[in-house]
Amino acid sequence: MAPGVSNEKKREDEQSSRENSIHLCNPHLEKMKEDILYHFALGTGTHDFPALFGDVKFVCVGGSPSRMKAFIAYIAEELGLGSSGGDYPNICAGTDRYAMYKVGPVLSVSHGMGIPSISIMLHELIKLLYHAKCSNITIIRIGTSGLEPGSVVITRQSVDATFKPQFEQVVLGKTIIRSTNLDEELAKELLQCSKEINQFNTVIGNTMCTLDFYEGQGRLDGAICLYNEEEKLQYLKEAYDSGVRNIEMESSVFAAMCNLSGVRAAVVCVTLLNRLEGDQISSSHDILVEYQQRPQKLVGYFIKKSLGKV
Amino acid sequence: MAPGVSNEKKREDEQSSRENSIHLCNPHLEKMKEDILYHFALGTGTHDFPALFGDVKFVCVGGSPSRMKAFIAYIAEELGLGSSGGDYPNICAGTDRYAMYKVGPVLSVSHGMGIPSISIMLHELIKLLYHAKCSNITIIRIGTSGLEPGSVVITRQSVDATFKPQFEQVVLGKTIIRSTNLDEELAKELLQCSKEINQFNTVIGNTMCTLDFYEGQGRLDGAICLYNEEEKLQYLKEAYDSGVRNIEMESSVFAAMCNLSGVRAAVVCVTLLNRLEGDQISSSHDILVEYQQRPQKLVGYFIKKSLGKV
Repeated sequence: MAPGVSNEKKREDEQSSRENSIHLCNPHLEKMKEDILYHFALGTGTHDFPALFGDVKFVCVGGSPSRMKAFIAYIAEELGLGSSGGDYPNICAGTDRYAMYKVGPVLSVSHGMGIPSISIMLHELIKLLYHAKCSNITIIRIGTSGLEPGSVVITRQSVDATFKPQFEQVVLGKTIIRSTNLDEELAKELLQCSKEINQFNTVIGNTMCTLDFYEGQGRLDGAICLYNEEEKLQYLKEAYDSGVRNIEMESSVFAAMCNLSGVRAAVVCVTLLNRLEGDQISSSHDILVEYQQRPQKLVGYFIKKSLGKV
Repeated sequence: MAPGVSNEKKREDEQSSRENSIHLCNPHLEKMKEDILYHFALGTGTHDFPALFGDVKFVCVGGSPSRMKAFIAYIAEELGLGSSGGDYPNICAGTDRYAMYKVGPVLSVSHGMGIPSISIMLHELIKLLYHAKCSNITIIRIGTSGLEPGSVVITRQSVDATFKPQFEQVVLGKTIIRSTNLDEELAKELLQCSKEINQFNTVIGNTMCTLDFYEGQGRLDGAICLYNEEEKLQYLKEAYDSGVRNIEMESSVFAAMCNLSGVRAAVVCVTLLNRLEGDQISSSHDILVEYQQRPQKLVGYFIKKSLGKV
């Protein structure tokens, strides 16, 4: 091969790798000798990120640490990568802020509840993937939500409490508006996967992301409630009419940060209760467990299919 | 005693008990047969709240479950109520959202990171204390924060990212402003306790509560940073000049909800790093552990003193 062609090929490769690698929106990081991911208890000075995480292609995140541990066991089984003992060590064992598990190309990370909690995790996760030189990453939030019980909702757009597809980020005391669109193609691929496994109802719809579980979502059963049932139902009806199909507490900052970092992202949540009928999550433990497995099944099938294993 | 006097006495008692009991700002709860505190995995239909929690007088809350477990072991030892095995069962073992421990009159509860996470916990905690018919409750957040390293800051007011002492609560899509004042008398009592134990520097000051750890607090080391070091330092200097002595992510909703519920409340946080010198939490593990014990020591001494055990 002539040197010119080789260089051109190299440039193409670089470009394609740039297109699919993590876009780090922070020029300051280049100047740091070491980067401590405090809430993961990991650091570039103490851990070899490319060796530990370089092969990651799919990152699944969810609120509960035990659910994310269950997910890694499930996906390991599905991909035929199960450990003999069936146990998976917590990569973030040095802290109790988040839990992280890995099997093959899949990373499973917990993020706690609410925008600030997932936002800390995403900052450190995006830096982890960048330091590990990962490329072609797909990140999917698998979570729980409310509105239509049992259904799985794949988020088209994450909307705020006034049904606008935007996230307000406060930076140095000033409010900046960021887009909360998610990858349309990925949402369609996930919907197709749901049709293929054909086990539960799945829809693509808007997801309302609130800062609060009780007053923010119009519940009547919090410690504080200064509105009546009619006002609550009116609000939920307005949300539904605007296209909202479920309500949770993390999707907006998740979409905004994945957008900025150039990572293909989706939100897949099961709904645990019908908010037009009540506010308390009173279904039996078994039903709730089965519901919570639905996003795992869907995303597990998607990962298998992406890896050509279906 | 004449019936009239007895009735009057009863009314006085009722009034004094009303004054110091939990003020539940939700008329809907009276109509509910059962109340499921979903994120605690506790319910009035399955648990005898007055028997389990009726004697609680002090509630300490903090982000990390393991820190709140360490606190209950510490306070048990201090109060001479230590279990022989030294182990304390997690009352919320049915869920991994929060952890809860109890010894004598002290309840210790984790709340995760950020306003939405602590807000869910506080709704369910306030209802728990109400259902348990608790009275004369003091609730103290013992946490970590940034700005002046090693110092313990007792919060006078919690301020937002624009240094205003207010919390914006979104209710049914509309923004309501709530006060974030904390109990002045309690803050003074805690400062006096710190003088008496005389082991570390403690100040009363304002605490800035942000929705984000990285951009929201002006860090240069997140995955996203679109400002420079000068703008960061300018912002932190403005915060300091306005009276801010530490920065964390939970105090505003904590103050607002305790205010509304008529619970005497304080925030006592140790600062882990000097933000004017850097953003990364890079102190040694031993130093961080010692720092994190300072609020525990201060609040432990306060509880002992309140119980007449000093």
